[in-house]
Amino acid sequence: MSYKSPIEDFKYNLAMLNYDEVIAGIEKFKEYDSETLMSVVSEIGRLNEQEVLDSNKIGDREGLKYVTDGAEGPEVHTPERFKKLYDAVKTSGYVGATMPTQYGGGGAPFTTAILAGEIGIAANMAFYMGPGLSHGAMKTILKKATEELKDKYLPNMTSGEWMGTMCLTEPQCGTDLGLIKSTAIPKDDHYELTGQKIWISFGEHDLTENIIHLVLARTPDAPEGIKGISLFLVPKRLDDNSRNTIYCGGLEHKLGINSSPTCVMNLENAKGWLVGEKNKGMEAMFLMMNDARLKVGLQGIAMSEISYQNALEFAKERKQMRSVVKDKQDKDSKADNIIVHPDVRRMLMNVKATTEAMRALCIYTAMKIDLAEDHPDEKVRQEADDFAALMTPIIKAYCTDRGFLNCSESLQVLGGSGFTKEYPLEQYMRDVRITMIYEGTNGIQALDLVGRKLTMHQGRLLQNFQKEVQKFLSENKDNEEISSFIKPLENALNEVTASTMWLMQNGIQDPENALASATDYLNLVALSSMTYMWARMAKFSVGKNEPIHKNKIKTGTYFVEKIMPELNMYSKKVQAGKSSMMDMEVAEF
Amino acid sequence: MSYKSPIEDFKYNLAMLNYDEVIAGIEKFKEYDSETLMSVVSEIGRLNEQEVLDSNKIGDREGLKYVTDGAEGPEVHTPERFKKLYDAVKTSGYVGATMPTQYGGGGAPFTTAILAGEIGIAANMAFYMGPGLSHGAMKTILKKATEELKDKYLPNMTSGEWMGTMCLTEPQCGTDLGLIKSTAIPKDDHYELTGQKIWISFGEHDLTENIIHLVLARTPDAPEGIKGISLFLVPKRLDDNSRNTIYCGGLEHKLGINSSPTCVMNLENAKGWLVGEKNKGMEAMFLMMNDARLKVGLQGIAMSEISYQNALEFAKERKQMRSVVKDKQDKDSKADNIIVHPDVRRMLMNVKATTEAMRALCIYTAMKIDLAEDHPDEKVRQEADDFAALMTPIIKAYCTDRGFLNCSESLQVLGGSGFTKEYPLEQYMRDVRITMIYEGTNGIQALDLVGRKLTMHQGRLLQNFQKEVQKFLSENKDNEEISSFIKPLENALNEVTASTMWLMQNGIQDPENALASATDYLNLVALSSMTYMWARMAKFSVGKNEPIHKNKIKTGTYFVEKIMPELNMYSKKVQAGKSSMMDMEVAEF
Repeated sequence: MSYKSPIEDFKYNLAMLNYDEVIAGIEKFKEYDSETLMSVVSEIGRLNEQEVLDSNKIGDREGLKYVTDGAEGPEVHTPERFKKLYDAVKTSGYVGATMPTQYGGGGAPFTTAILAGEIGIAANMAFYMGPGLSHGAMKTILKKATEELKDKYLPNMTSGEWMGTMCLTEPQCGTDLGLIKSTAIPKDDHYELTGQKIWISFGEHDLTENIIHLVLARTPDAPEGIKGISLFLVPKRLDDNSRNTIYCGGLEHKLGINSSPTCVMNLENAKGWLVGEKNKGMEAMFLMMNDARLKVGLQGIAMSEISYQNALEFAKERKQMRSVVKDKQDKDSKADNIIVHPDVRRMLMNVKATTEAMRALCIYTAMKIDLAEDHPDEKVRQEADDFAALMTPIIKAYCTDRGFLNCSESLQVLGGSGFTKEYPLEQYMRDVRITMIYEGTNGIQALDLVGRKLTMHQGRLLQNFQKEVQKFLSENKDNEEISSFIKPLENALNEVTASTMWLMQNGIQDPENALASATDYLNLVALSSMTYMWARMAKFSVGKNEPIHKNKIKTGTYFVEKIMPELNMYSKKVQAGKSSMMDMEVAEF
Repeated sequence: MSYKSPIEDFKYNLAMLNYDEVIAGIEKFKEYDSETLMSVVSEIGRLNEQEVLDSNKIGDREGLKYVTDGAEGPEVHTPERFKKLYDAVKTSGYVGATMPTQYGGGGAPFTTAILAGEIGIAANMAFYMGPGLSHGAMKTILKKATEELKDKYLPNMTSGEWMGTMCLTEPQCGTDLGLIKSTAIPKDDHYELTGQKIWISFGEHDLTENIIHLVLARTPDAPEGIKGISLFLVPKRLDDNSRNTIYCGGLEHKLGINSSPTCVMNLENAKGWLVGEKNKGMEAMFLMMNDARLKVGLQGIAMSEISYQNALEFAKERKQMRSVVKDKQDKDSKADNIIVHPDVRRMLMNVKATTEAMRALCIYTAMKIDLAEDHPDEKVRQEADDFAALMTPIIKAYCTDRGFLNCSESLQVLGGSGFTKEYPLEQYMRDVRITMIYEGTNGIQALDLVGRKLTMHQGRLLQNFQKEVQKFLSENKDNEEISSFIKPLENALNEVTASTMWLMQNGIQDPENALASATDYLNLVALSSMTYMWARMAKFSVGKNEPIHKNKIKTGTYFVEKIMPELNMYSKKVQAGKSSMMDMEVAEF
């Protein structure tokens, strides 16, 4: 089991995406040039040593203990090792790195969280869910809560002293939050919350003294459906350190992320305070959600990377069969390292070529989020926000679907060994599988893309993206050195345009057409965005002589030759429409 | 958790594939018309009741116990429930159903084993690996062993009193059996075998008194490599019931199939008897292997089917969100069953449309195997054998790759519930993952297809298949009622022809080109074969009015509209060749 942080690739992407120029436009980040950023990331990344990797396996095997007869109610015990690990994470400044210094944070750009996050997730995905979700909770409090609540809770959250959660789902509703039944009754200066929440990650644990829950519930006078949902802050411990009446009712037993507590949370007149406006809970919730969705996409990328590294290590050592090319045969052995075999290379390159493009797209989106939040020019902010809003469901869904396939493909490189618990690949595959489901299933991401992002502001979000790609094409159409990337990008843009047209025409006539093709359309736009990233990488690398530049051109060539045929396939699937699935009667399934 | 044997679909396929006409040509199976066949299958299929399904979950959770201090050496204990289950399997006649009556078998066609096998595997894949592998061992003994060995071992194996295994892999060689080190030294009337075998399924267990191992090893005078491998029969117990010196050295801990013992087997001067000719062990081994490969493909199909059934049950019950079509909304509820949603239907139809085509192809191949073995006309035998030889690696690889994706897609229908151990989907996905690896990884299947099957007899195998499809096209080109299937089939055949041409030309010039494109080529031919199956189903169903006929036409329409775009994608990938993966230096990965 091994892992090396992809520091060099991070640096490459920051340079390729003109990070320094972009960040220089934002006053508050003027100290955070790429060098500073990378030193912060490396500082946090230093955690990722054998200790973290080992804790990942221990966490999976040992799992969690649910103890019903704790001193103050049911308790969830994490593996012993996790406490030391969490202390190290606190000390490193990971938790509050991007929070304002006013509340004890590091004041770093959001991009930092994406780079450092990839390292943490790769090392121990289940464990890093805790700090990751806490970040979403902090961000929501920062943007929506009163000054009083911010002053009271944020400093202890940014330091990692306390952790935060998101409490959304109930037994009758996951996707469909309009069906929420939990109630919040006003009383004195606060509310009293009652109800049951399920699938609450890190809802209860022993890593921090206090846990700050953000809970969706209904006030007595609330209208029906999602327009009657409000958001509340419900701490595990109240000001006097007494226990609030929110308790863990049990843990889920799962395929993976065994050391991430997935809790049933029962509230019985638990004290809570409103966050944001009454009945505007969904809006506040989406602040958490968008942050979380991007990071779930990042989980797909991180797990692809560590799976790839482990498969590569195996492929360089395992000897089996002969190369068909005499010159490539190892004369000192009866068999060759399996990395000589084309089919093994095919698997490795599938993972490598997609992972690097997904990473570039994710870092680019993170930079756009920094621009959207803090650039002085409103037009820049708006365009950046459009880009991030468009890419969030794409990154969440595509990078997790692919992340799962990449973990499976990496496992396959190991053959029978990959199926055993002696190697970490089987755990990576089990762990990453949840990313396709939580924070909105990938089907829901596709509906968000087609139903919301594509139609908002008269289609401006996608049009801006198309313009950006078109501009790149116009600027580079005569660049002979990268013509092998320009043609595929033109093809990709044409396919996006054609499928979008199809979707608009047929989706307006009959919304089921848009819904039936949404997932295929998302994959199409994802692959187009990745093609755009590879074209930019090619342009940036061509004529440069360091190994990474040559490497990028070769890897990008694999992408356009061997991955891009998938793009045209999705385009055809989109335009095949709804009838073949909607004509089926329920009894015919 | 539920499962209903797909009896109706079996009957449909037998009728569609003219089973009765085919089998009537074989004297020894003259009693086995489709009605008799289905009554035998139903008899065996009756096992598949709650008992079997429950044992599957228990087997996964309870797993196996490795006991080092057994009375006669290390023992492997299966869950208590398995003994009752195995007794029921014995009584049903499953184990020896297709063995000759002379040795106590049922004398049924091989097709029986495929139909009954699908039911058994779906109910408990890990458990049914035992009887499945035993069948391969029996078949090898039947075809290759001396009369003495056959008389001594087969009757107890066909009754299920004893089980058989295949002992191939060693630590230094899985794929590359030429590297086998185990030795067999002649002594008196037998050999003494010494060595270590790994990943031996059902190598040790407590379900039968005796276990009959078929072991690959080298005699002292054997030439190097695969031309010096011989096959030996090594029983756990000798004639006097004393223990032979073959012992289980431990069990693997695995991602799935937790109740299938995967054993390290140590031989120390264990007594064995030669099966087949000396140094022709690989040939004998392939008898077991081809049988096993088809059944591994069948595992992919069976697991697709049971995953689909469970996803469907959930989709019909779970209510979440509203249909966009007012008329489809359930007025008595605040949300609709999720099967109204197009994206949920997309997932279900992906599984249904591929599973039914894979099943048809597998049954068709099983019928060809019956023809190849027992038809009086040599030409019929040879053509049938060509077909089976061509399809074996395709079914093994495609149906397991797709089987895994289908289990994952079915899990996705359940959302968060699918990720929990409350539902069986997560186990199905873990169990089915091994099928892509064992009995030759799917990469090896692709090499078998491209390197052996495509080139043997001057390409006759594929040419025969192309001719068969061409004949169907010519006969039906003016059949307006199925024109929506004929055009896609023409396209499929053209793509196969073009990619085969490309492979021949470029693979002869440079074998790495063929190896680099082998997996994509296999998928292309697989999808073409499935398109052919759908075209035949459409032809058979058109104009008929029972529900299954309408169902097939709708499901087939989904296949040609929504799955077939994958076929053209694979064709493009094939023709992209090797350079983008082979140009990478090892250090550049």
